[in-house]
Amino acid sequence: MPHDTPPSARATMTAPGANPILVEVTRGPIVESRHRGSAVVVDVTGKVAACWGDRSQAVYPRSAIKPLQAIPLVETGAAEAFGMGDAEIAFACASHNGEPRHTGTAAAILARIGLSAGDLECGSHWPYHEETVRAMAAAGETPCPLHNNCSGKHCGFLATAVHMGDRTKGYVRFEHPVQQRILGVLEAMCGVDLGHAPRGIDGCAIPTIAIPLENMALAMARFGAPDDLPPARAAACRRIARAVAAEPFMVAGTGRYCTDVMAVTGRAVLLKTGAEGVFCAALPDYGLGVALKCDDGASRASEIMMSAVLRHVGVLDEAMEAKLATRIVMPIANRNGAHVGDVRAAPAFGG
Amino acid sequence: MPHDTPPSARATMTAPGANPILVEVTRGPIVESRHRGSAVVVDVTGKVAACWGDRSQAVYPRSAIKPLQAIPLVETGAAEAFGMGDAEIAFACASHNGEPRHTGTAAAILARIGLSAGDLECGSHWPYHEETVRAMAAAGETPCPLHNNCSGKHCGFLATAVHMGDRTKGYVRFEHPVQQRILGVLEAMCGVDLGHAPRGIDGCAIPTIAIPLENMALAMARFGAPDDLPPARAAACRRIARAVAAEPFMVAGTGRYCTDVMAVTGRAVLLKTGAEGVFCAALPDYGLGVALKCDDGASRASEIMMSAVLRHVGVLDEAMEAKLATRIVMPIANRNGAHVGDVRAAPAFGG
Repeated sequence: MPHDTPPSARATMTAPGANPILVEVTRGPIVESRHRGSAVVVDVTGKVAACWGDRSQAVYPRSAIKPLQAIPLVETGAAEAFGMGDAEIAFACASHNGEPRHTGTAAAILARIGLSAGDLECGSHWPYHEETVRAMAAAGETPCPLHNNCSGKHCGFLATAVHMGDRTKGYVRFEHPVQQRILGVLEAMCGVDLGHAPRGIDGCAIPTIAIPLENMALAMARFGAPDDLPPARAAACRRIARAVAAEPFMVAGTGRYCTDVMAVTGRAVLLKTGAEGVFCAALPDYGLGVALKCDDGASRASEIMMSAVLRHVGVLDEAMEAKLATRIVMPIANRNGAHVGDVRAAPAFGG
Repeated sequence: MPHDTPPSARATMTAPGANPILVEVTRGPIVESRHRGSAVVVDVTGKVAACWGDRSQAVYPRSAIKPLQAIPLVETGAAEAFGMGDAEIAFACASHNGEPRHTGTAAAILARIGLSAGDLECGSHWPYHEETVRAMAAAGETPCPLHNNCSGKHCGFLATAVHMGDRTKGYVRFEHPVQQRILGVLEAMCGVDLGHAPRGIDGCAIPTIAIPLENMALAMARFGAPDDLPPARAAACRRIARAVAAEPFMVAGTGRYCTDVMAVTGRAVLLKTGAEGVFCAALPDYGLGVALKCDDGASRASEIMMSAVLRHVGVLDEAMEAKLATRIVMPIANRNGAHVGDVRAAPAFGG
C-alpha cells in the first residue's frame, strides 16, 4: 500500500493517536457530544483517494466484511449447488433484524442443506427489530439461533462446509476449514499477511482479525471492481454484489441504514455495517473501496460518517440526497416528537 | 470557582479541545474502541480535588441533576403535604426502567394530587426494561406517559405545581413557575448565572441548561454536604439524599448501574446518570461532588468513569469493590456467553 497521501487527498492533520472529530451531536444551540474516527477511500491499486485520521490502524472488521466472508460460499460452488438465489446470498452477508423473512430464510437454507437451527453455533438473542420482539412475546415465543443477526452468515458457513465435506461441528473455530478459507480470502483481498495479526472473538463466536483500515478499504475496492482478480474470485464477487443490490432488505431490514441506503443507490453502493463503529463500502463505478471506524464504537456516528464519505466521493446525486436526508443529517426527536437536535458530519468532514 | 488546579489534583494534560482517553474497550489482545471525556471532583467551596480533561466546558446535565430538580418538591412542602415517603421522593429523582413498581408509583402519586397520566407532558416510550416490554406485549398493552423513564420527575413537578397553585398545563416550559424555581435552585447550587446559558430541550420536553462541569460538581458537593446552605434548602437536600439511599430501586431499576452501586454503597454515594454520557455524584462523607461527561455520549463509558472516580477518591472499600467488580471492569460476552473483552478504565485513569 502506498503510504504517501496524494495532493488530491483531503486529510485532516491530527496529533498522533488523536483522530479528528468527524461527527457532532447537537442539541439546541450547542454541540452536546462528539465522535472521533478515521476513514479512508482507496482504489483497486491501494492508492489513497481520501483520508481522515489514522488509516494504518489495525481494526477488527467485525461484521463490516461479511460480503468478503461470503466469497467462499459462492467460489466453492456451494451456493449454486444448493440453489441459493439473490435473497439467500444477500442473507449470507447480513446483520439482520430477525424479522420473519430473515428467520424464514435461515430455516429454509438449513433445511436445504440437511441441517437445523441446532447446528448454528452463533448463539441466540432477541431480534434487533423491536416490533418483531413484541410480536414474538405476544405469541409466547423465545429467540433461537435463527434470530441471531449473524444467522445468515452462519447458514452460509454451514452450506460451504457441507458442500466441501467438512465436519460441520466447530465451524466457528479459527482452525476449521471454513474459517481458514476466509482467512485466505481476506489475506488475498486485503493484500496483507494476517498470520500474526491480533485476533479476537466476535459476538457470534467466530474469529475477528485486526486489519489495517486502508487494507480493508483495498479489499472492498477489489470486491466492487474485481476485473484484476482471478476469474473464479471475480465471478464470486460479482455474484454477491448483484445479490446484495437486488435484496437490500435481506442484509439488514426495516428501518436500517444499510437497507435504506442500498435501496436508494442500487448497484452504485454496496455497504455493510459492523459492530463498534466499523463500516465498509464498495463503489464499483468509481473503482473505490471505503473503510471507516468511529473511535468510540457508536453506530450513529459510523452511519453519518459513511454518508459523508459517499457525498465526498460524489456518488449520491441530488435525488438520492433528498431521499437520504435523514441518513446524512439524522434528526433527534424528544418523546413528544419535537425536533431537538441532530447527528451530523463535523464541518471538517463536509457537515 | 478557583481555576488553578492545586498540586494535589491529578490532571492529564491534553491539547485544547481533546479530552483524554478515559475508557478502553478491549477484545482479545487489543483495544477495540476508546472513549474520551472529562471528570472533576470538587469540595463544597469549589476547590478542585481531582480533574481529568476540561472541567470548564459547558455541558447539558440532562437527567444527571434530577436530585437537584427535586429540591423544590421538598422545599415548597409539596412532598410533605401529599404524604410522599422515601419511595415517592426517590422516584422523583429517577430515570427509571418502567417496571411495574415504577409505573404503579407514578399512578399513585398522580391519584393523590388529583391528576392522571394525561396530565404528564413527558411523552411515552416503551420501558427500558426488556422483560417488562415483553410482558406488556404478551398482555396486549402499549406504553403511556407512566412508562416514560422521566415520569417520576414529572410527577414531582406536577405535585409542586398543584401545591403552589400553579396552572399545571405547560409545566415543562422554561417560563413556567416549576421550571423557573428549578432554574433558581440550579443557579444557587451551582454558583453560576444561567440567565444566558445555552439551552436545549431534553428528551422529556423540559429545558436542559448547559452548566460548566465543575459547577455541576460543586452543586453535587453542596447537595451531599449541605451544612452551609440555608436551613430549608439544607433540609430538602438531606430529605432527598435519605430517600434515594433508602430506595435505590426507585431511581433506576433491575440491572441498572445507579441502583446496583447505591445498593452496595448505601449513604456513602448518591449518584445519578444522564443521557449523552453525563454522570453526577455526591459523596457526603467526603464533602465532595463529582461531575463527568463522556465526549461521545456513551453510557457504558460514563458508568466505568464514575466507578474509576469513586475508586480514586477512595470511597469504595474492599468488600464494595468485590461486589461491584463488573461495574469497575465490565465484561463483554458473546452470544454464547463466552468472555471476549472488557470495558475498563484507561491506564491513566486507574485502569
